[in-house]
Amino acid sequence: MILNTPIDMHLHLREGKILKDVIPYTTNQFAAAVIMPNLIPPVDNREKLESYKAEILENSENFTPLMNLFMREYTEEELLDLSEDIFAIKLYPAGITTNSENGVKSIEAIYPVLEIMQELDIPLSVHGETNGFVLDREREFGAVYKKLAIDFPKLKVIMEHVGTADLLSLLDEYENLYATVTLHHLLLTLDDVAGGMLNPHYFCKPIIKTPKDKMEIQKFVKSGHKKIMFGSDSAPHPIKNKLKGAAGVFSAPVILPALAEFFEGDNETFQKFISDNARENFNLNLPERQVELIEEEWIAPYIVGDIKPMWAGKKFRYKVKNAV
Amino acid sequence: MILNTPIDMHLHLREGKILKDVIPYTTNQFAAAVIMPNLIPPVDNREKLESYKAEILENSENFTPLMNLFMREYTEEELLDLSEDIFAIKLYPAGITTNSENGVKSIEAIYPVLEIMQELDIPLSVHGETNGFVLDREREFGAVYKKLAIDFPKLKVIMEHVGTADLLSLLDEYENLYATVTLHHLLLTLDDVAGGMLNPHYFCKPIIKTPKDKMEIQKFVKSGHKKIMFGSDSAPHPIKNKLKGAAGVFSAPVILPALAEFFEGDNETFQKFISDNARENFNLNLPERQVELIEEEWIAPYIVGDIKPMWAGKKFRYKVKNAV
Repeated sequence: MILNTPIDMHLHLREGKILKDVIPYTTNQFAAAVIMPNLIPPVDNREKLESYKAEILENSENFTPLMNLFMREYTEEELLDLSEDIFAIKLYPAGITTNSENGVKSIEAIYPVLEIMQELDIPLSVHGETNGFVLDREREFGAVYKKLAIDFPKLKVIMEHVGTADLLSLLDEYENLYATVTLHHLLLTLDDVAGGMLNPHYFCKPIIKTPKDKMEIQKFVKSGHKKIMFGSDSAPHPIKNKLKGAAGVFSAPVILPALAEFFEGDNETFQKFISDNARENFNLNLPERQVELIEEEWIAPYIVGDIKPMWAGKKFRYKVKNAV
Repeated sequence: MILNTPIDMHLHLREGKILKDVIPYTTNQFAAAVIMPNLIPPVDNREKLESYKAEILENSENFTPLMNLFMREYTEEELLDLSEDIFAIKLYPAGITTNSENGVKSIEAIYPVLEIMQELDIPLSVHGETNGFVLDREREFGAVYKKLAIDFPKLKVIMEHVGTADLLSLLDEYENLYATVTLHHLLLTLDDVAGGMLNPHYFCKPIIKTPKDKMEIQKFVKSGHKKIMFGSDSAPHPIKNKLKGAAGVFSAPVILPALAEFFEGDNETFQKFISDNARENFNLNLPERQVELIEEEWIAPYIVGDIKPMWAGKKFRYKVKNAV
């Protein structure tokens, strides 16, 4: 099976040693990826943007990093300067996930920035969770998505890593809302985190939810909905940090083999989910690159550097031709 | 404040070093406790029952262990012999929690044992969870509780460590159902486990659920409902096992200080919950012992042996007079 120009619309690469360890597992499967800016300090100025992009390019080949900025109160001048070099600006409600302590405390405070973004056609990428009860946070945030969609009708708003199926029904209500879905929210439930022994390696924010959410997310994705795109939210943490409770699933190594099984026989929808929808929704003009999946048993890596991948050691029926 | 003969209706003491480490934190607060039988191998014969009880007595003073047996297909002869020396028989659906791999796979298989228990007036203690989705297991098990209550109308059935408030409404529908409530299901929610960083020390089965469940459980407990009794389900695991995902909260050290704050000013309901309800429901004839709580700042221990207690390091406004 050949996939044309697969794009991971939501990726954490970190920096330094971790980046070097994990990036080959993305670049062998994806022609491009949207790179999240939650470093310490965050990517929120030209200097950091350029040095981070350079680090990614030095460690990859035939790969396009689509850079995101971390939300702050940017001026119009700054964004005019930066807009050609970024894909989107990422909004983290303060303190909700990894390295988001500097996130935004009030949505209204960034309305002037959103005005400028709308004008300059810079998409807004959102980690959509309130500070409510862990299972309700995404559903509660639905009200914020609606408000953003209405208040900025020409701003493209991406609801990232949707784990609560309710949110996906907003896609047809508001023209300017889009969504990414991760591998783990598509294929796992809270049972995988806490149904047997506690498994910190599947703990992430937003937390993976119920079988009903999973089923409905699968239905949306299988429907080939144009506004739903794949975004892994692959988020590597060293095992010692996972054991201290860090949130994030390092899914990068197993993405295409797992999705090939999920879409089994429906290459058309797979191709849309993994690339075409994103390219059309955001007019992405990327160098094309074909990625081949072959039907051959493949075992997911047990460890990558100091990081335990999702489904470590699991057997798959498909293998990426250039498997790491 | 003086409590008369506090009883912990659900306690895991383990054996050997762990038992020696943890038992002082129970015996300084409780006159008696119902001792769970899920050792390896389980407490399911006279020899093990006697040696385990002896181990507990050797390591305690002025303390009555109310021994439970682990459910298996006992004969009438065995139970006639054992009935005077036990409080109840504990039913674990197979594989659902710590050391329950030898549990019961089909409730019908033990109907003959339940007949004998009903006849001999031996209560049935139940870990009520199905093998369904982790958040639904207790609610789904409600059907089993109803069936047991109807099929054995004179068998006293204890719904242990209720974390799903729905189950408590069964108490008024079925005369022979009783319930225990833990400190952590009374005072925590899934947010404490997975709302911030993942906290394995608050991971238990049944898993701690929603704010709504917590609120309703609190309402039931505060109402002084006669059939609701305190059972800590305090379940010590060495930290290294908790980090591997073992289920159980070691709450023993903080129970009375935490409950004193919860019941603040309502000593009558506190006394019922912590002792009187249990003594009346099960005609327990125990040596009376008074336990004094003084209003004085007290800090919960950070560590007990190799075990991290619930609310380690937290300040309380009440202190057990004989605090360890």
